Amino acid sequence: MGGSQTVNGQAMYCLTASGSKVDVDKLKACSEDAANKPFMIGSSVLCHGGRVIIAGGGATCFSMGTFWDTNVYQAQMPTILSGDRKLPKEGGQSTEVVVHECLLENGKMDFNAKNFRYITDDFGTIMTRANNGDRLYLRSLSNDKPAEQPAKLEDDYPGLAAEFSLPEQLSYVKTQIFSSVLRVSGKVNMWLHYDVMANVYAQIVGSKRMILFPPSDVSQLAFAPGASSSSVDVFAALETAKLASTRPHEAMVGPGDVLFLPPLWLHAAAPTTNMSVAVNVFFRDLSSGYASGRDVYGNRDLAAYEKGRQDVAKIAKQFQQLPEEIRKFYLTRLADELLQAAGSN
Amino acid sequence: MGGSQTVNGQAMYCLTASGSKVDVDKLKACSEDAANKPFMIGSSVLCHGGRVIIAGGGATCFSMGTFWDTNVYQAQMPTILSGDRKLPKEGGQSTEVVVHECLLENGKMDFNAKNFRYITDDFGTIMTRANNGDRLYLRSLSNDKPAEQPAKLEDDYPGLAAEFSLPEQLSYVKTQIFSSVLRVSGKVNMWLHYDVMANVYAQIVGSKRMILFPPSDVSQLAFAPGASSSSVDVFAALETAKLASTRPHEAMVGPGDVLFLPPLWLHAAAPTTNMSVAVNVFFRDLSSGYASGRDVYGNRDLAAYEKGRQDVAKIAKQFQQLPEEIRKFYLTRLADELLQAAGSN
Repeated sequence: MGGSQTVNGQAMYCLTASGSKVDVDKLKACSEDAANKPFMIGSSVLCHGGRVIIAGGGATCFSMGTFWDTNVYQAQMPTILSGDRKLPKEGGQSTEVVVHECLLENGKMDFNAKNFRYITDDFGTIMTRANNGDRLYLRSLSNDKPAEQPAKLEDDYPGLAAEFSLPEQLSYVKTQIFSSVLRVSGKVNMWLHYDVMANVYAQIVGSKRMILFPPSDVSQLAFAPGASSSSVDVFAALETAKLASTRPHEAMVGPGDVLFLPPLWLHAAAPTTNMSVAVNVFFRDLSSGYASGRDVYGNRDLAAYEKGRQDVAKIAKQFQQLPEEIRKFYLTRLADELLQAAGSN
Repeated sequence: MGGSQTVNGQAMYCLTASGSKVDVDKLKACSEDAANKPFMIGSSVLCHGGRVIIAGGGATCFSMGTFWDTNVYQAQMPTILSGDRKLPKEGGQSTEVVVHECLLENGKMDFNAKNFRYITDDFGTIMTRANNGDRLYLRSLSNDKPAEQPAKLEDDYPGLAAEFSLPEQLSYVKTQIFSSVLRVSGKVNMWLHYDVMANVYAQIVGSKRMILFPPSDVSQLAFAPGASSSSVDVFAALETAKLASTRPHEAMVGPGDVLFLPPLWLHAAAPTTNMSVAVNVFFRDLSSGYASGRDVYGNRDLAAYEKGRQDVAKIAKQFQQLPEEIRKFYLTRLADELLQAAGSN
């Protein structure tokens, strides 16, 4: 216990047993304030509403007396809320929509390789084709200003929106809402990527297998600088040595399930049925730090990263004219210093 | 062969067999220009004058015809020039000098721990005490302006300077000279450090064991950001797991030997006789990049690093208010990007 997580070792980990495997996850406390950290002796721990709730506990110290923890704490990790969701009726049959059509037989879309094309068709046709397992993927955009505004289900698909509601426990998501996106897919995989906005993914029709990795795995998953998508096929590579030191999480989501995705968790999705329909609600969980300006997809990197990349380019340029050995010596040291500042060294 | 060392694999390595061990060193070519890289087929390789000289060679290609390499190339690595040096007489017996006196029985000085004190005495007394193996270390400074100017043997010890000369092969060192430093030590170790200036270390009296590491080992040897000295006791740690992935070089230097130290090679020294006397000549081997302003010791970091550290602090500050997980995610990516710019990823 103490003021500094690093020095006093008060980081919180969550151990989840499934079969013969135990997953260990570092919990991100909602408050970084040490005074607001739980006592963790005799506490009760409960998973609820996409959160880990910690309550109660206390201890008697021979020197200092007895303390009871009277606060309730919560921490974030990806969580599925199970429950009944209403199934939407199809709406706006004749509305024209633009969808991804994957060019590969195996339906594995890759954003970097651009192995898909965009096709335009009416919503009814797309639904019928997706229902047949065609390699189509609809990620809804704003009807009015698709290149400028984020999608809003109530504006873009009012018929569907009327029938969709998030459970009451997720009122925070509604308060902080950024966008609500309809996702319809046939037999295609969504490539590995991350979103900068936190979001909840509500499965309506069909089911999906999602593989998620904590943000700390980013260096091992071939994300190019500045890119939020990777070409790593995690479904094929999951059991290989390539991903041996990553910490994958698997989520099987079916109708009525809501998956909470904390910001920056890397994830990929594969359908386990012909068609999958979901509503994905993005919300702001940071009070500040988002880049100003356009962000249609909720995955525009934080302002500090965009600025930081410019600074990194400037630093690198200063060393360009120096011999390779000297350049490597100093840039390695500067990279180490950045990691130390991050608290990861 | 080709324009890019990284892509075309045209880096040069030097394999040196000694006993049952083979050392592998990457050679730093004097020119980064690919057009000035040797052909390396049938070439002759010769170590001479602190340089690796590559000459001759050629090949016949069925498609492109016959090519002969008519250039002579050279590359840098630490090298001892052996030969007879004149032994200096003691000079300026009554001149007052400031020396390090190590406070530890084992004589292992540590710059960071400051386990030594500075004492002032006349040169004759210091020489006598060092000759007895007392734990003293004299690193000469400029007589006139010790806090401002680098040492110059001819100004500081004209009597000794008259009897010291570098061999003709090192005329480049004389042309590019930055400072010439008298080093007198009893039974004390010089801590692990690096110099930014290239230098030649000419042993005059007694002998020393030096351990050297290539600049690429810097991350493994606990150099704090901005520090050119480390507290790692490499003599004790050399055979331990801690240094298992470093690439140490050992040099035993005796009277008449000249050791060439390329810039940024990390090194520590231990005497193998009671007293060691050496002249250390620092020289500029970069046409630009040195920090402007004072540099008494020849180990002030390059301007680009001093500037880069400020930029790194600025970047880190931008992330200070963000949650730990997000901060680590982005700072790790920025560190990776810096390493990629260095060409080491």
